[in-house]
Amino acid sequence: MRYLTSLISLLILTSCSQSAPPDWALVVHGGAGTIHASTLNAEQQAQYHQSLDEALVAGEHVLESGGSSLDAVTAAIQVLEQSPLFNAGRGAVFTHEGRNELDASIMDGRDLNAGAVAGVTVIKSPIAAARAVMEDSPHVMLSGVGAEEFARERGLEIVEPAYFYTERRWQDLQKAQQNEQKPQASLQGSKDWKFGTVGAVALDRDGNLAAGTSTGGMTNKRWGRIGDAPVIGAGTYAANESCAVSATGHGEYFIRRTVARDICARVQFAGASLPDAAAQVIQDILKPMGGEGGIIALDTQGNMVMEFNSAGMFRGSVSSRQARHTALFHK
Amino acid sequence: MRYLTSLISLLILTSCSQSAPPDWALVVHGGAGTIHASTLNAEQQAQYHQSLDEALVAGEHVLESGGSSLDAVTAAIQVLEQSPLFNAGRGAVFTHEGRNELDASIMDGRDLNAGAVAGVTVIKSPIAAARAVMEDSPHVMLSGVGAEEFARERGLEIVEPAYFYTERRWQDLQKAQQNEQKPQASLQGSKDWKFGTVGAVALDRDGNLAAGTSTGGMTNKRWGRIGDAPVIGAGTYAANESCAVSATGHGEYFIRRTVARDICARVQFAGASLPDAAAQVIQDILKPMGGEGGIIALDTQGNMVMEFNSAGMFRGSVSSRQARHTALFHK
Repeated sequence: MRYLTSLISLLILTSCSQSAPPDWALVVHGGAGTIHASTLNAEQQAQYHQSLDEALVAGEHVLESGGSSLDAVTAAIQVLEQSPLFNAGRGAVFTHEGRNELDASIMDGRDLNAGAVAGVTVIKSPIAAARAVMEDSPHVMLSGVGAEEFARERGLEIVEPAYFYTERRWQDLQKAQQNEQKPQASLQGSKDWKFGTVGAVALDRDGNLAAGTSTGGMTNKRWGRIGDAPVIGAGTYAANESCAVSATGHGEYFIRRTVARDICARVQFAGASLPDAAAQVIQDILKPMGGEGGIIALDTQGNMVMEFNSAGMFRGSVSSRQARHTALFHK
Repeated sequence: MRYLTSLISLLILTSCSQSAPPDWALVVHGGAGTIHASTLNAEQQAQYHQSLDEALVAGEHVLESGGSSLDAVTAAIQVLEQSPLFNAGRGAVFTHEGRNELDASIMDGRDLNAGAVAGVTVIKSPIAAARAVMEDSPHVMLSGVGAEEFARERGLEIVEPAYFYTERRWQDLQKAQQNEQKPQASLQGSKDWKFGTVGAVALDRDGNLAAGTSTGGMTNKRWGRIGDAPVIGAGTYAANESCAVSATGHGEYFIRRTVARDICARVQFAGASLPDAAAQVIQDILKPMGGEGGIIALDTQGNMVMEFNSAGMFRGSVSSRQARHTALFHK
């Protein structure tokens, strides 16, 4: 009898801990792409783990102390923007003309408020600028020198374009442009891109979701190209009623497939679970099209999803019930 | 007996003609907003009817002769871009700095290919530029001077910025800036905007959908603001599996609510009819938020929807089974 009572107690305990959502949760990514154990040595791998962990620590600190999911997303992304390892902020890839043109967006799951900047070159933290657009302008999306003027007026930190320079990304551009000279080479044909876009999704103690994404875009991009990162519904989406998503990958496919919104629409309208919806979009739709990349996602139940169809995705997660965990490759 | 046979024949005929889709269909809009019979005199109303009819004729000509929905959408929108009556191409509204910055996008329902330009100032036909981005670049969205360089390289027609000037829109800017000086006035507070964005959706004889949208954006817009028109999933969306949508209205709300994709997602995932999906989004979701505007939409069954929550929407429709019809106000 005592044995039976213990067993029942254990079952109830297990069942409760699985069904009750965590108090808060955070998932971050630092890009998806051709990321293999063979291309990163042990020291490099350790650096990626460390930077991802620092981003988790920054967001965890906000969420643990009762801060908002918006603040957690902003804090986590700013750590990754400041790291030269990732293609966002410092360490961004170079355009065809040898510039760093940065895109970012953020969305509040409570009221679907959103902000985005595209093609900015002197704003230190593009995610902070996206948030200022959301909170302090009548617009959702600002671009180019206009967005920079807005950021200046709002007192955001402005830097010299050289702040974003890293030798590694400069060499990536040189390689990309050498490949362009080869017969049959094209922007689409190159398989050498590293998709280092960064992003975060968070659930706070008040049950609110938020999502954000920040990027330098695509090495050797031209003509004022805007990718999916600043496009609400493509690279970023958050709605408490469905889910929060931040994407990384070959942006053109993510725009055409409205990836972030599509995943949340499958949850909202088709009754799919968040893991199933993410797998449908990333594996069944994007992969056959050639749309390489991945997403991170969260719902208000605290389900954390990290789905990608590339060799690897820099990623990490933490919640009130799960210690910080980071990963680079498949499984 | 003869009477009964005739009745049955009539019933079958009626039933067939209602259920079989038309061979082709086209819907156009020239913007939604505070459009009342009291604010447009008879001559002005006649001008709007005539321009909308000309757009229908251009698209009808393409579709009737077996051309593609993409060609029909492009042809219809180019008529409206060239008319000074609408806020797209010639006749576009002015930015805060007194410029015309144009946005456009187009999407192919067959393969979800898409193209968009944002913030262009010297391309005569922004919709043609959006189409060139789709068909002749590896990108989906180009912006600013980069997009203009691309258009030049592709041989698109380039004009002086003065080409887009109209006295009426210049006066709109002067009024908007005078209102800004008044206490408690804000960009969001102004109710005087005319939303004259133009767009078209088409179904061709091959059963393919397409959608396109072209605009000058919002009078007195600042900081390189990008509205919903060039954002795939917000102002424009087309997928044969669900529907084609072109939107017009207060763009910030349309981006936040991913309006075009949301309508098609309700059709695709929730099993809603196209008219119901459009009404849910435009009336039940956007209107309570203050998101004034409307959409036109089509599905492969040839269902034509023109839904708006503003006083009026310049619009027109035609199909292989319905003569050209244009309208300005409610009902």
